[in-house]
Amino acid sequence: MAPLIPYPPPSGIDKYLPPPQHTGKLFLTLTYATSLDSHLSIPLTQVHHSGPETKSLTHHLRTLHDAILIGVGTAVVDDPGLNSRLPGTPLTRQPRPIILDPAFRWGVTRVSRVVQTAKRGEGLAPYVFVRSEVEIDGDERKGILEEVGGRVVVIETLGGRKWDWRDLSEKMKELGLNSVMVEGGGGVINDLLAEGNLPLVDSVIVTIAPTYLGQGGVNVSPPAVLSAADGKRTLAVRFRSVEWRILGRDVVMFAQPDL
Amino acid sequence: MAPLIPYPPPSGIDKYLPPPQHTGKLFLTLTYATSLDSHLSIPLTQVHHSGPETKSLTHHLRTLHDAILIGVGTAVVDDPGLNSRLPGTPLTRQPRPIILDPAFRWGVTRVSRVVQTAKRGEGLAPYVFVRSEVEIDGDERKGILEEVGGRVVVIETLGGRKWDWRDLSEKMKELGLNSVMVEGGGGVINDLLAEGNLPLVDSVIVTIAPTYLGQGGVNVSPPAVLSAADGKRTLAVRFRSVEWRILGRDVVMFAQPDL
Repeated sequence: MAPLIPYPPPSGIDKYLPPPQHTGKLFLTLTYATSLDSHLSIPLTQVHHSGPETKSLTHHLRTLHDAILIGVGTAVVDDPGLNSRLPGTPLTRQPRPIILDPAFRWGVTRVSRVVQTAKRGEGLAPYVFVRSEVEIDGDERKGILEEVGGRVVVIETLGGRKWDWRDLSEKMKELGLNSVMVEGGGGVINDLLAEGNLPLVDSVIVTIAPTYLGQGGVNVSPPAVLSAADGKRTLAVRFRSVEWRILGRDVVMFAQPDL
Repeated sequence: MAPLIPYPPPSGIDKYLPPPQHTGKLFLTLTYATSLDSHLSIPLTQVHHSGPETKSLTHHLRTLHDAILIGVGTAVVDDPGLNSRLPGTPLTRQPRPIILDPAFRWGVTRVSRVVQTAKRGEGLAPYVFVRSEVEIDGDERKGILEEVGGRVVVIETLGGRKWDWRDLSEKMKELGLNSVMVEGGGGVINDLLAEGNLPLVDSVIVTIAPTYLGQGGVNVSPPAVLSAADGKRTLAVRFRSVEWRILGRDVVMFAQPDL
C-alpha cells in the first residue's frame, strides 16, 4: 500500500463521533465515499475517486471507533486492510475489523490483507459474524483467523427470529465494543438506512467526490418510505444538525438522522 | 407560488457562468438539485428537498442565461414556470424557456404555468423544439403558444441523421440564444453527461441536499465509459476546476468537464 498522507481532520465535528464516555448504547457511525451519482465503485475495477484529504479523514475516524464493520461482499472484492494507516497509530487505537458474513462465504487465507496486517501488528485481527446455522467446527478458515487473534462469532437466531441489526449491536457490546464505523458495501449501507434500522444509526458521514462513476454500479439509496399521514412516498431519510466540510476536491457531510 | 426569498449568490463563481462577451459558441450550463442518493424527485410527488438558499441561486442563474431548457417529461409532470422569480427581475433578464419535445406530446394549454407566466409579463413564452416529422399545422397548441409570443421550433433531421445536441445548439444560436441552462429531467441530464455530448457542456452546477429520497426515482448517472487504454470501465465524467459552496443546509458543486 502507498503510504497514507496525513491531513488535519476538520474541526467542530465532535458531536458526530463516539463520546469519550461510553453511554451504554453502541455508537454507530455510517460512513462511505461516493460519487455524484451515489455509486460506491465501478464493478470489477479499483478506480479511486475520493482524494487524499478525505482518505486521511477516514483513517482518522477509524482510530476513534472500537470497531469497523463491512459486508462480506466488500471483503471478497476489495481484500481490505481494515486498519488505520495514519502514521504512528498505536495498536490500541486500531479498530476491530468485523466482517458481516451470515453464510461464512469469505475465503479468508493467510495472505488476506487483513490477516497480514494483524500479523504485522499494524491492525487487529478480524471477527467474522456468522449465523448460528453455519457449521464452523473444523473449518480451516477459523484456524487461520484464530492464529492472528481473530475469531468466528456466532450470532444466535433463536426462535426463527431474523438476524437483524439489533442482534448485531447486542453482540458487539458483549464483545466490549462500544462504537462501530460501518463502511460498506452498498447492501449494508442501504439496509442500515432503511426505516426500521435507522434508529440504530448515530451519525452519517458521507464523502462526495466530484465525479460520476456511471451506470451499472451499486447505487446507495435506501428503500422508499411512505408517509404515515397520507400513504404517499416521502423523504426516505431526513437529517438534523447537518454540517458540510470541503476537504480538498471532495465535500463531506456530517449529519445525525432525524427520526 | 410562494414568493422567493432572495439570498446573495456565492462569490467567485464567474468562470462557471456565461461570459459577458459572446464567444460564438453556445455556453451550456448543466444544473440540477439532487439528493445524497442522486435522485431528482420522488415519482408522483412534489417533495422539496433543496433549501431556500440554493433555490435562490437557481433563480439567480436563470437571469444570467438566455435560455432555460427542460425535457418534455419535466414539463408534463411539474408544470413549471421556467422564469426567474427573484424580486425585481426585469423581463429583459428572463430566460427563454425551451421544451425539448421531439414528438410534441406536451399538452400545453392556456392555463399551463409557463403560458400564464408569460401572459402576466413575468417571463418569456416558451419555444417547443420538435422533430421535423411532427405535423404541427392546425395544431391548437401552436396557436396557444403564439398568442403569448412562444413558438414551435422545428429541428430538421435531414438525411436520416439523428437529432442530437449539436443540432439543438445550432438552432439555439440561430434563434439568438447564446447561453442555455439545462435543468432536467433525469433523461436529459444523463444524455448530456454521456461521453459523446459532454464536449458541449461548459459548466456543471449541482446542488446536493442532505437527504435521501429513496429507491424508485430517476438516478442521475451517465452511461458507463470504457477506458481507451485497456477497455475497462473508468470514471464516466471527470471534472477540472472544481469548487464547492455551502449554502444553507445544501452544498453546491461548480465544475467544468475535463475532456
